[in-house]
Amino acid sequence: MSSPPVAFRRARSAEHKERRVRDLVDAARTLASERGVRTVTLTAIATRAGVHVSAVRRYFDSRADILLVLVGEGWREWAARVGRALQPGADGDPVRVADALAGTLAELPLFCDLLAQVALSLEREATVESIRAAAVTEREQVETIADVVTAASDRLDRGQVCELVAATALLAGALWQVAHPTGEVAGLHRDDPRLAPAAVDFPVQLARLVRALATGLELEDFGSPGRGAVRG
Amino acid sequence: MSSPPVAFRRARSAEHKERRVRDLVDAARTLASERGVRTVTLTAIATRAGVHVSAVRRYFDSRADILLVLVGEGWREWAARVGRALQPGADGDPVRVADALAGTLAELPLFCDLLAQVALSLEREATVESIRAAAVTEREQVETIADVVTAASDRLDRGQVCELVAATALLAGALWQVAHPTGEVAGLHRDDPRLAPAAVDFPVQLARLVRALATGLELEDFGSPGRGAVRG
Repeated sequence: MSSPPVAFRRARSAEHKERRVRDLVDAARTLASERGVRTVTLTAIATRAGVHVSAVRRYFDSRADILLVLVGEGWREWAARVGRALQPGADGDPVRVADALAGTLAELPLFCDLLAQVALSLEREATVESIRAAAVTEREQVETIADVVTAASDRLDRGQVCELVAATALLAGALWQVAHPTGEVAGLHRDDPRLAPAAVDFPVQLARLVRALATGLELEDFGSPGRGAVRG
Repeated sequence: MSSPPVAFRRARSAEHKERRVRDLVDAARTLASERGVRTVTLTAIATRAGVHVSAVRRYFDSRADILLVLVGEGWREWAARVGRALQPGADGDPVRVADALAGTLAELPLFCDLLAQVALSLEREATVESIRAAAVTEREQVETIADVVTAASDRLDRGQVCELVAATALLAGALWQVAHPTGEVAGLHRDDPRLAPAAVDFPVQLARLVRALATGLELEDFGSPGRGAVRG
Protein backbone atom coordinates (compact mmCIF):
# COMPACT_ATOMS: atom_id res chain seq x y z
CA MET A 1 0.00 0.00 0.00
CA SER A 2 1.30 3.45 -0.85
CA SER A 3 1.34 5.98 2.02
CA PRO A 4 -1.22 8.81 1.93
CA PRO A 5 -0.21 12.14 0.35
CA VAL A 6 1.87 14.52 2.51
CA ALA A 7 -0.86 17.19 2.77
CA PHE A 8 -3.31 14.59 4.04
CA ARG A 9 -0.86 13.27 6.62
CA ARG A 10 -0.10 16.81 7.82
CA ALA A 11 -3.81 17.54 8.22
CA ARG A 12 -4.30 14.29 10.16
CA SER A 13 -1.34 15.13 12.36
CA ALA A 14 -2.57 18.70 13.02
CA GLU A 15 -6.01 17.34 13.86
CA HIS A 16 -4.48 14.75 16.20
CA LYS A 17 -2.44 17.46 17.92
CA GLU A 18 -5.48 19.71 18.37
CA ARG A 19 -7.44 16.85 19.89
CA ARG A 20 -4.61 16.02 22.32
CA VAL A 21 -4.31 19.67 23.37
CA ARG A 22 -8.08 19.82 23.93
CA ASP A 23 -8.03 16.58 25.95
CA LEU A 24 -5.24 17.87 28.19
CA VAL A 25 -6.93 21.24 28.76
CA ASP A 26 -10.23 19.46 29.52
CA ALA A 27 -8.47 17.19 32.01
CA ALA A 28 -6.78 20.15 33.73
CA ARG A 29 -10.12 22.01 33.92
CA THR A 30 -11.86 19.04 35.53
CA LEU A 31 -9.09 18.36 38.04
CA ALA A 32 -8.67 22.03 38.99
CA SER A 33 -12.44 22.43 39.47
CA GLU A 34 -12.65 19.30 41.62
CA ARG A 35 -9.56 19.69 43.80
CA GLY A 36 -8.35 23.27 43.49
CA VAL A 37 -5.78 24.66 41.07
CA ARG A 38 -2.93 24.39 43.53
CA THR A 39 -2.98 20.59 43.73
CA VAL A 40 -3.06 19.91 39.96
CA THR A 41 0.15 18.28 38.71
CA LEU A 42 1.27 17.54 35.16
CA THR A 43 1.19 13.82 35.93
CA ALA A 44 -2.41 14.00 37.17
CA ILE A 45 -3.44 15.92 34.03
CA ALA A 46 -1.74 13.33 31.78
CA THR A 47 -3.32 10.39 33.64
CA ARG A 48 -6.76 11.99 33.49
CA ALA A 49 -6.39 12.64 29.75
CA GLY A 50 -5.11 9.10 29.12
CA VAL A 51 -1.76 10.39 27.77
CA HIS A 52 1.63 9.24 29.00
CA VAL A 53 3.31 12.07 30.90
CA SER A 54 6.36 11.95 28.59
CA ALA A 55 4.04 12.54 25.61
CA VAL A 56 2.48 15.64 27.22
CA ARG A 57 5.73 17.52 26.61
CA ARG A 58 5.01 17.42 22.87
CA TYR A 59 2.07 19.77 23.52
CA PHE A 60 2.89 21.70 26.70
CA ASP A 61 6.11 22.47 28.59
CA SER A 62 4.57 22.48 32.07
CA ARG A 63 1.37 22.44 34.13
CA ALA A 64 1.58 26.25 34.17
CA ASP A 65 1.33 26.38 30.34
CA ILE A 66 -1.88 24.31 30.48
CA LEU A 67 -3.35 26.32 33.38
CA LEU A 68 -2.69 29.59 31.51
CA VAL A 69 -5.00 28.32 28.75
CA LEU A 70 -7.71 28.09 31.43
CA VAL A 71 -6.87 31.64 32.53
CA GLY A 72 -7.53 32.86 28.97
CA GLU A 73 -10.83 30.92 28.90
CA GLY A 74 -11.78 32.54 32.21
CA TRP A 75 -11.21 36.05 30.91
CA ARG A 76 -13.33 35.37 27.78
CA GLU A 77 -16.12 33.80 29.81
CA TRP A 78 -16.15 36.65 32.37
CA ALA A 79 -16.31 39.29 29.59
CA ALA A 80 -19.16 37.39 27.88
CA ARG A 81 -21.13 37.25 31.15
CA VAL A 82 -20.61 40.96 31.87
CA GLY A 83 -21.90 41.64 28.35
CA ARG A 84 -25.11 39.76 29.15
CA ALA A 85 -25.47 41.36 32.62
CA LEU A 86 -25.18 45.02 31.55
CA GLN A 87 -27.55 46.57 29.00
CA PRO A 88 -26.37 49.50 26.86
CA GLY A 89 -27.89 52.78 28.06
CA ALA A 90 -28.78 51.41 31.50
CA ASP A 91 -28.89 53.96 34.32
CA GLY A 92 -25.15 53.52 34.74
CA ASP A 93 -25.03 53.70 38.53
CA PRO A 94 -21.48 52.58 39.41
CA VAL A 95 -23.01 50.33 42.08
CA ARG A 96 -24.86 48.40 39.35
CA VAL A 97 -21.69 48.20 37.28
CA ALA A 98 -19.90 46.85 40.36
CA ASP A 99 -22.63 44.27 40.94
CA ALA A 100 -22.41 43.09 37.33
CA LEU A 101 -18.62 42.72 37.57
CA ALA A 102 -18.55 41.05 40.98
CA GLY A 103 -21.65 38.91 40.45
CA THR A 104 -20.50 37.41 37.15
CA LEU A 105 -16.98 36.82 38.47
CA ALA A 106 -18.25 35.04 41.59
CA GLU A 107 -20.05 32.61 39.25
CA LEU A 108 -16.64 31.46 37.92
CA PRO A 109 -14.95 29.76 40.89
CA LEU A 110 -12.21 28.10 38.84
CA PHE A 111 -11.27 31.45 37.29
CA CYS A 112 -11.24 33.07 40.76
CA ASP A 113 -8.98 30.28 42.03
CA LEU A 114 -6.65 30.78 39.05
CA LEU A 115 -6.47 34.57 39.32
CA ALA A 116 -4.27 34.66 42.45
CA GLN A 117 -1.84 32.21 40.88
CA VAL A 118 -1.13 33.94 37.56
CA ALA A 119 1.48 36.45 38.73
CA LEU A 120 2.54 34.48 41.81
CA SER A 121 3.34 31.17 40.19
CA LEU A 122 2.04 30.50 36.65
CA GLU A 123 4.01 33.38 35.09
CA ARG A 124 7.13 32.12 36.90
CA GLU A 125 6.85 28.59 35.51
CA ALA A 126 5.35 28.80 32.01
CA THR A 127 7.05 29.53 28.69
CA VAL A 128 7.14 33.10 27.50
CA GLU A 129 4.76 32.32 24.61
CA SER A 130 2.08 30.91 26.96
CA ILE A 131 2.48 33.95 29.23
CA ARG A 132 2.17 36.30 26.25
CA ALA A 133 -0.95 34.54 24.93
CA ALA A 134 -2.73 34.68 28.32
CA ALA A 135 -1.68 38.30 28.91
CA VAL A 136 -2.87 39.42 25.45
CA THR A 137 -6.22 37.67 26.01
CA GLU A 138 -6.50 39.44 29.39
CA ARG A 139 -5.86 42.87 27.80
CA GLU A 140 -8.37 42.18 24.98
CA GLN A 141 -11.06 41.05 27.41
CA VAL A 142 -10.48 44.02 29.75
CA GLU A 143 -11.10 46.22 26.69
CA THR A 144 -14.23 44.21 25.80
CA ILE A 145 -15.55 44.69 29.35
CA ALA A 146 -14.65 48.39 29.16
CA ASP A 147 -16.72 48.67 25.93
CA VAL A 148 -19.72 47.08 27.66
CA VAL A 149 -19.44 49.20 30.81
CA THR A 150 -18.91 52.52 29.02
CA ALA A 151 -21.94 51.75 26.80
CA ALA A 152 -24.00 51.11 29.95
CA SER A 153 -22.66 53.97 32.07
CA ASP A 154 -21.41 57.47 31.39
CA ARG A 155 -20.47 57.92 35.03
CA LEU A 156 -17.15 56.07 34.79
CA ASP A 157 -14.61 56.95 32.11
CA ARG A 158 -12.72 54.27 30.22
CA GLY A 159 -9.57 54.59 32.35
CA GLN A 160 -11.61 54.24 35.54
CA VAL A 161 -13.38 51.17 34.15
CA CYS A 162 -10.12 49.45 33.17
CA GLU A 163 -8.76 50.14 36.66
CA LEU A 164 -11.95 48.83 38.25
CA VAL A 165 -11.86 45.63 36.19
CA ALA A 166 -8.19 44.97 37.01
CA ALA A 167 -8.74 45.70 40.72
CA THR A 168 -11.83 43.47 40.80
CA ALA A 169 -9.80 40.60 39.38
CA LEU A 170 -6.98 41.16 41.91
CA LEU A 171 -9.39 41.34 44.85
CA ALA A 172 -11.39 38.33 43.69
CA GLY A 173 -8.24 36.24 43.35
CA ALA A 174 -6.93 37.13 46.80
CA LEU A 175 -10.31 36.96 48.53
CA TRP A 176 -11.15 33.59 46.96
CA GLN A 177 -8.10 32.02 48.59
CA VAL A 178 -8.98 33.50 52.00
CA ALA A 179 -12.61 32.37 51.65
CA HIS A 180 -11.67 28.80 50.71
CA PRO A 181 -9.23 27.60 53.35
CA THR A 182 -8.37 23.97 54.05
CA GLY A 183 -10.71 22.08 56.37
CA GLU A 184 -8.19 22.46 59.18
CA VAL A 185 -8.00 26.26 58.81
CA ALA A 186 -11.79 26.52 58.46
CA GLY A 187 -11.99 24.59 61.75
CA LEU A 188 -9.69 27.13 63.40
CA HIS A 189 -11.89 30.02 62.20
CA ARG A 190 -14.96 28.19 63.53
CA ASP A 191 -13.57 27.07 66.88
CA ASP A 192 -11.31 29.91 68.00
CA PRO A 193 -13.52 32.90 68.88
CA ARG A 194 -10.57 35.26 68.25
CA LEU A 195 -10.56 34.15 64.60
CA ALA A 196 -14.29 34.28 63.84
CA PRO A 197 -13.92 37.50 61.78
CA ALA A 198 -11.53 35.65 59.46
CA ALA A 199 -14.38 33.61 57.95
CA VAL A 200 -15.37 35.24 54.62
CA ASP A 201 -18.58 34.96 52.58
CA PHE A 202 -16.92 35.30 49.17
CA PRO A 203 -19.68 36.70 46.89
CA VAL A 204 -21.00 39.06 49.59
CA GLN A 205 -17.60 40.46 50.54
CA LEU A 206 -16.43 40.74 46.92
CA ALA A 207 -19.60 42.64 45.97
CA ARG A 208 -19.17 45.08 48.90
CA LEU A 209 -15.55 45.86 48.08
CA VAL A 210 -16.16 46.28 44.33
CA ARG A 211 -19.11 48.60 45.08
CA ALA A 212 -16.83 50.67 47.31
CA LEU A 213 -14.12 50.76 44.62
CA ALA A 214 -16.55 51.77 41.86
CA THR A 215 -18.12 54.48 44.02
CA GLY A 216 -14.73 55.81 45.09
CA LEU A 217 -13.28 55.75 41.56
CA GLU A 218 -16.27 57.66 40.17
CA LEU A 219 -16.13 60.38 42.79
CA GLU A 220 -12.51 61.29 42.87
CA ASP A 221 -9.72 61.97 40.47
CA PHE A 222 -7.04 60.35 42.57
CA GLY A 223 -4.41 61.20 40.03
CA SER A 224 -3.41 58.27 37.87
CA PRO A 225 -0.10 59.02 36.17
CA GLY A 226 -2.02 59.27 32.89
CA ARG A 227 -4.76 61.48 34.25
CA GLY A 228 -3.24 64.41 36.07
CA ALA A 229 -1.76 65.28 39.42
CA VAL A 230 -2.28 63.39 42.64
CA ARG A 231 -4.87 65.15 44.77
CA GLY A 232 -3.00 67.02 47.53
CA MET B 1 33.24 17.12 87.55
CA SER B 2 29.58 16.99 88.58
CA SER B 3 26.99 18.03 85.97
CA PRO B 4 25.21 21.39 86.46
CA PRO B 5 21.85 21.45 88.31
CA VAL B 6 18.75 20.51 86.28
CA ALA B 7 17.21 24.01 86.43
CA PHE B 8 20.41 25.49 85.07
CA ARG B 9 20.58 22.99 82.22
CA ARG B 10 16.93 23.63 81.33
CA ALA B 11 17.55 27.37 81.22
CA ARG B 12 20.61 26.84 79.01
CA SER B 13 18.61 24.59 76.72
CA ALA B 14 15.68 27.05 76.49
CA GLU B 15 18.11 29.85 75.72
CA HIS B 16 19.83 27.73 73.08
CA LYS B 17 16.47 26.91 71.48
CA GLU B 18 15.43 30.58 71.43
CA ARG B 19 18.70 31.53 69.77
CA ARG B 20 18.30 28.81 67.13
CA VAL B 21 14.73 29.92 66.39
CA ARG B 22 15.91 33.51 66.07
CA ASP B 23 18.80 32.50 63.76
CA LEU B 24 16.43 30.57 61.49
CA VAL B 25 13.87 33.39 61.32
CA ASP B 26 16.67 35.89 60.61
CA ALA B 27 17.99 33.66 57.82
CA ALA B 28 14.52 33.31 56.27
CA ARG B 29 13.99 37.08 56.46
CA THR B 30 17.28 37.79 54.71
CA LEU B 31 16.76 35.19 51.98
CA ALA B 32 13.14 36.20 51.33
CA SER B 33 14.10 39.88 51.12
CA GLU B 34 16.95 39.17 48.71
CA ARG B 35 15.34 36.61 46.41
CA GLY B 36 11.58 36.73 46.94
CA VAL B 37 9.52 34.62 49.33
CA ARG B 38 8.59 32.09 46.68
CA THR B 39 12.13 30.80 46.15
CA VAL B 40 13.02 30.30 49.83
CA THR B 41 13.46 26.63 50.75
CA LEU B 42 13.96 25.01 54.16
CA THR B 43 17.40 23.82 53.04
CA ALA B 44 18.46 27.35 52.04
CA ILE B 45 17.24 28.71 55.40
CA ALA B 46 19.17 26.02 57.30
CA THR B 47 22.35 26.61 55.29
CA ARG B 48 22.14 30.37 55.79
CA ALA B 49 21.62 29.92 59.54
CA GLY B 50 24.49 27.42 59.78
CA VAL B 51 22.19 24.64 61.02
CA HIS B 52 21.95 21.18 59.49
CA VAL B 53 18.59 20.78 57.75
CA SER B 54 17.75 17.70 59.85
CA ALA B 55 18.22 19.81 63.01
CA VAL B 56 15.79 22.51 61.77
CA ARG B 57 12.91 20.10 62.37
CA ARG B 58 13.49 20.40 66.13
CA TYR B 59 12.31 24.01 65.86
CA PHE B 60 10.02 24.23 62.81
CA ASP B 61 8.02 21.67 60.83
CA SER B 62 8.36 23.41 57.44
CA ARG B 63 9.43 26.56 55.59
CA ALA B 64 5.81 27.73 55.89
CA ASP B 65 6.01 27.66 59.70
CA ILE B 66 9.08 29.92 59.59
CA LEU B 67 7.56 32.26 56.98
CA LEU B 68 4.39 32.65 59.08
CA VAL B 69 6.60 34.09 61.86
CA LEU B 70 7.63 36.76 59.33
CA VAL B 71 3.94 37.36 58.51
CA GLY B 72 3.27 38.07 62.21
CA GLU B 73 6.27 40.43 62.30
CA GLY B 74 4.90 42.21 59.22
CA TRP B 75 1.50 42.82 60.80
CA ARG B 76 3.11 44.24 63.96
CA GLU B 77 5.45 46.47 61.97
CA TRP B 78 2.64 47.74 59.70
CA ALA B 79 0.44 48.59 62.71
CA ALA B 80 3.33 50.41 64.41
CA ARG B 81 3.97 52.47 61.26
CA VAL B 82 0.28 53.38 60.83
CA GLY B 83 0.35 54.50 64.50
CA ARG B 84 3.22 56.89 63.72
CA ALA B 85 1.64 58.12 60.45
CA LEU B 86 -1.80 59.06 61.81
CA GLN B 87 -2.23 61.58 64.63
CA PRO B 88 -5.25 61.33 66.96
CA GLY B 89 -7.81 64.01 66.16
CA ALA B 90 -6.43 64.68 62.67
CA ASP B 91 -8.93 65.94 60.09
CA GLY B 92 -9.92 62.34 59.40
CA ASP B 93 -10.36 62.63 55.63
CA PRO B 94 -10.66 59.01 54.44
CA VAL B 95 -8.16 59.86 51.68
CA ARG B 96 -5.54 60.67 54.33
CA VAL B 97 -6.37 57.46 56.18
CA ALA B 98 -5.96 55.58 52.90
CA ASP B 99 -2.59 57.26 52.25
CA ALA B 100 -1.37 56.30 55.72
CA LEU B 101 -2.41 52.67 55.22
CA ALA B 102 -1.09 52.31 51.66
CA GLY B 103 2.05 54.39 52.20
CA THR B 104 3.23 52.49 55.28
CA LEU B 105 2.42 49.12 53.70
CA ALA B 106 4.35 49.95 50.52
CA GLU B 107 7.41 50.55 52.74
CA LEU B 108 7.32 46.86 53.75
CA PRO B 109 8.10 44.95 50.52
CA LEU B 110 8.79 41.63 52.25
CA PHE B 111 5.42 41.80 54.04
CA CYS B 112 3.68 42.66 50.74
CA ASP B 113 5.39 39.68 49.07
CA LEU B 114 4.26 37.41 51.94
CA LEU B 115 0.65 38.62 52.00
CA ALA B 116 -0.42 36.90 48.76
CA GLN B 117 1.08 33.63 49.96
CA VAL B 118 -0.57 33.28 53.37
CA ALA B 119 -3.93 31.85 52.27
CA LEU B 120 -2.68 30.44 48.98
CA SER B 121 0.23 28.37 50.24
CA LEU B 122 1.54 29.02 53.77
CA GLU B 123 -1.76 28.08 55.46
CA ARG B 124 -1.83 24.90 53.35
CA GLU B 125 1.64 23.78 54.45
CA ALA B 126 2.20 24.93 58.02
CA THR B 127 1.10 23.31 61.29
CA VAL B 128 -2.18 24.39 62.79
CA GLU B 129 -0.41 26.07 65.73
CA SER B 130 1.72 28.27 63.44
CA ILE B 131 -1.38 29.18 61.43
CA ARG B 132 -3.29 30.04 64.61
CA ALA B 133 -0.44 32.19 65.96
CA ALA B 134 -0.13 34.20 62.72
CA ALA B 135 -3.91 34.57 62.39
CA VAL B 136 -4.31 35.76 66.00
CA THR B 137 -1.50 38.30 65.49
CA GLU B 138 -3.25 39.50 62.31
CA ARG B 139 -6.58 39.98 64.16
CA GLU B 140 -4.84 41.82 67.06
CA GLN B 141 -2.97 44.13 64.70
CA VAL B 142 -6.09 44.86 62.61
CA GLU B 143 -7.73 45.96 65.89
CA THR B 144 -4.67 48.07 66.78
CA ILE B 145 -4.85 49.78 63.38
CA ALA B 146 -8.61 50.26 63.84
CA ASP B 147 -7.92 51.98 67.21
CA VAL B 148 -5.46 54.36 65.53
CA VAL B 149 -7.73 55.13 62.57
CA THR B 150 -10.91 55.68 64.60
CA ALA B 151 -8.94 58.02 66.93
CA ALA B 152 -7.79 59.99 63.87
CA SER B 153 -11.06 59.95 61.93
CA ASP B 154 -14.74 59.98 62.85
CA ARG B 155 -15.72 59.59 59.19
CA LEU B 156 -15.18 55.82 59.08
CA ASP B 157 -16.74 53.52 61.66
CA ARG B 158 -14.82 50.65 63.21
CA GLY B 159 -16.41 48.04 60.91
CA GLN B 160 -15.52 50.09 57.83
CA VAL B 161 -11.95 50.51 59.05
CA CYS B 162 -11.47 46.77 59.67
CA GLU B 163 -12.82 46.06 56.18
CA LEU B 164 -10.55 48.71 54.68
CA VAL B 165 -7.48 47.30 56.44
CA ALA B 166 -8.24 43.73 55.34
CA ALA B 167 -8.96 44.82 51.74
CA THR B 168 -5.76 46.92 51.65
CA ALA B 169 -3.74 43.86 52.69
CA LEU B 170 -5.45 41.69 50.04
CA LEU B 171 -4.91 44.26 47.29
CA ALA B 172 -1.31 44.93 48.29
CA GLY B 173 -0.49 41.23 48.25
CA ALA B 174 -2.02 40.64 44.83
CA LEU B 175 -0.74 43.88 43.29
CA TRP B 176 2.80 43.30 44.61
CA GLN B 177 3.06 40.05 42.66
CA VAL B 178 1.78 41.72 39.46
CA ALA B 179 4.16 44.65 39.93
CA HIS B 180 7.22 42.42 40.49
CA PRO B 181 7.28 39.95 37.59
CA THR B 182 10.31 37.93 36.52
CA GLY B 183 12.78 39.64 34.20
CA GLU B 184 11.33 37.68 31.28
CA VAL B 185 7.75 38.83 31.97
CA ALA B 186 8.90 42.41 32.58
CA GLY B 187 10.57 42.19 29.15
CA LEU B 188 7.25 41.11 27.59
CA HIS B 189 5.46 44.09 29.17
CA ARG B 190 8.18 46.41 27.88
CA ASP B 191 8.53 45.01 24.35
CA ASP B 192 4.99 44.02 23.36
CA PRO B 193 2.94 47.21 22.89
CA ARG B 194 -0.27 45.26 23.55
CA LEU B 195 0.99 44.54 27.07
CA ALA B 196 2.27 47.97 28.07
CA PRO B 197 -0.75 48.59 30.39
CA ALA B 198 0.28 45.49 32.38
CA ALA B 199 3.28 47.30 33.89
CA VAL B 200 2.32 48.51 37.38
CA ASP B 201 3.87 51.20 39.60
CA PHE B 202 3.17 49.48 42.92
CA PRO B 203 3.02 52.35 45.47
CA VAL B 204 1.13 54.66 43.08
CA GLN B 205 -1.47 52.07 42.06
CA LEU B 206 -1.93 50.77 45.61
CA ALA B 207 -2.48 54.31 46.92
CA ARG B 208 -5.07 55.04 44.20
CA LEU B 209 -7.09 51.88 44.88
CA VAL B 210 -7.00 52.25 48.66
CA ARG B 211 -8.15 55.90 48.30
CA ALA B 212 -11.04 54.72 46.15
CA LEU B 213 -11.94 51.98 48.65
CA ALA B 214 -11.82 54.36 51.63
CA THR B 215 -13.91 56.99 49.82
CA GLY B 216 -16.44 54.40 48.68
CA LEU B 217 -16.70 52.70 52.08
CA GLU B 218 -17.31 56.05 53.81
CA LEU B 219 -20.03 57.16 51.44
CA GLU B 220 -22.23 54.13 51.19
CA ASP B 221 -23.75 51.60 53.48
CA PHE B 222 -23.33 48.70 51.08
CA GLY B 223 -24.97 46.37 53.54
CA SER B 224 -22.49 44.19 55.36
CA PRO B 225 -24.32 41.25 56.91
CA GLY B 226 -23.74 42.88 60.32
CA ARG B 227 -24.86 46.34 59.26
CA GLY B 228 -28.25 46.17 57.61
CA ALA B 229 -29.80 45.50 54.25
CA VAL B 230 -28.03 45.58 50.90
CA ARG B 231 -28.72 48.84 49.12
CA GLY B 232 -31.39 48.18 46.46
